[in-house]
Amino acid sequence: MQAKKQAKRRGGEAGGSGSFTRALSTSQGFRLADCDPRSTPGFDGDKAAGVALMAATVPELGDLQERLYADAIVGGKAAVLLVVQGMDTSGKGGIMRHVVGSVDPQGVRYTAFKAPTREELEHPFLWRIRKALPRPGQIGVFDRSHYEDVLIARVHNLVPPATWGRRYGQINAFEQAVTQTGTTIVKVMLHISSDEQKARLTARLDQPDKHWKYNPADVDEREWWLAYQEAYQGAIEKCSTEHAPWFVVPADRKWYARLAVQQLVVEHLRAMAPQWPAATFDVEAEMERLAAT
Amino acid sequence: MQAKKQAKRRGGEAGGSGSFTRALSTSQGFRLADCDPRSTPGFDGDKAAGVALMAATVPELGDLQERLYADAIVGGKAAVLLVVQGMDTSGKGGIMRHVVGSVDPQGVRYTAFKAPTREELEHPFLWRIRKALPRPGQIGVFDRSHYEDVLIARVHNLVPPATWGRRYGQINAFEQAVTQTGTTIVKVMLHISSDEQKARLTARLDQPDKHWKYNPADVDEREWWLAYQEAYQGAIEKCSTEHAPWFVVPADRKWYARLAVQQLVVEHLRAMAPQWPAATFDVEAEMERLAAT
Repeated sequence: MQAKKQAKRRGGEAGGSGSFTRALSTSQGFRLADCDPRSTPGFDGDKAAGVALMAATVPELGDLQERLYADAIVGGKAAVLLVVQGMDTSGKGGIMRHVVGSVDPQGVRYTAFKAPTREELEHPFLWRIRKALPRPGQIGVFDRSHYEDVLIARVHNLVPPATWGRRYGQINAFEQAVTQTGTTIVKVMLHISSDEQKARLTARLDQPDKHWKYNPADVDEREWWLAYQEAYQGAIEKCSTEHAPWFVVPADRKWYARLAVQQLVVEHLRAMAPQWPAATFDVEAEMERLAAT
Repeated sequence: MQAKKQAKRRGGEAGGSGSFTRALSTSQGFRLADCDPRSTPGFDGDKAAGVALMAATVPELGDLQERLYADAIVGGKAAVLLVVQGMDTSGKGGIMRHVVGSVDPQGVRYTAFKAPTREELEHPFLWRIRKALPRPGQIGVFDRSHYEDVLIARVHNLVPPATWGRRYGQINAFEQAVTQTGTTIVKVMLHISSDEQKARLTARLDQPDKHWKYNPADVDEREWWLAYQEAYQGAIEKCSTEHAPWFVVPADRKWYARLAVQQLVVEHLRAMAPQWPAATFDVEAEMERLAAT
């Protein structure tokens, strides 16, 4: 219920509450090409200040997550779904390690979506997504998501245009249904520049202990850079809805991208304002029963 | 393969390598009743020293986990399964938050086993367990496990004695098959005293923001304390096998229990010795291809 109220509030006044939520929202007419991947919207501090703010926010994030979890124990339905998308090397792994990794794993449901398996391909594209949704009280995290089905699928013609063209509407209907169950959806695109990707791939080749992260196909994919940018633009335009808006996070500076995603999650949790549930038992009577054991 | 070698080595010389692994192993004749829940086997430092060692070990644990994960990318089969059991308030949640929570969530598969659902009850008791096993490269974590089926099921006669009696052998066969796929199993029982549980339950009642963790049924369960101790003794005796030994961790001191579980995991990973995979491509040629983009 709180989640729905929040979605409405954000819809009402574009961007909603919280400085990162406002600064990173994708209002109508948003152009990915106009977004500078080295900028730091909503934050005018330097790296040291960003790292400090991030560390200082961990306890509040932990507290909010535990309240969300506790609320579900007594029947609350609220949950969070963080969707993380971005080109190779855009820093998804760092978000998982540094932002998601700072949250109690008991309250997190993390799913990495790889190329679909044969079984998954035999089902509608949202089939594997539904199975990975967070339960009440959880923070669900999608490392890639159903958006791959309108990104790589579109760029490489894995399905006919009519098929991926239909998916935007299917995604919007699906996400709306998810928010109606009490889940607040936060969709993040990590936006890096082609030059920064080149530098990061080069760094992987330079370090033997990073070779396992390198795939020669990543270089081939660079030829499709513009097509990917167009596909992202399309997904943001068509699927940044009132109930599940997209946030575009400039990601050439890793410290900023991590801070921004953390703050987006915290700002949404603050707006949900989960409360400690009241005792459903007589505290004094339980004290006595316990003392007698 | 490394996992199997490790399992054999530990089997060969009871306790295997690593000081916590040796100090906490349950060799033949082990009696739970003789294990002091306030003791700190394998560690003679105080709380401050324990906390410091734990913090100092986090980077090595992270490095070992990433190597394990990387190895699976190139076809390695090794994985870890950490099974955590213990009475209510024994500190399972703290292990998840402080030990599991320090590991990159991308490499962890965490599952909390609650009372079985109706669907789960319609299947053999290991059905839901098999579905939660770690894939190669992952550290699987069971917060409670298939052992509940010889613990609460035995104490409260949820199934006839002949049924739970058969399960020890079924568990041993199952765990052996799991280790044969390359998974190293680390089974931990957090061993607290009845007095410490009483103190922890009292503390939950004292703090309104902990009331959600309190369940009046927890007090009723205290009447079955000795029956649970017997059931744990049975599980340890019958299922501490060469391939999947039990470790009993004294848990009245939270700092020690967390340190001990962390060290057990690290010692097992060290013995598995996962290596960074060699590049499967021509590094120089890739550098040139990348530079040309």
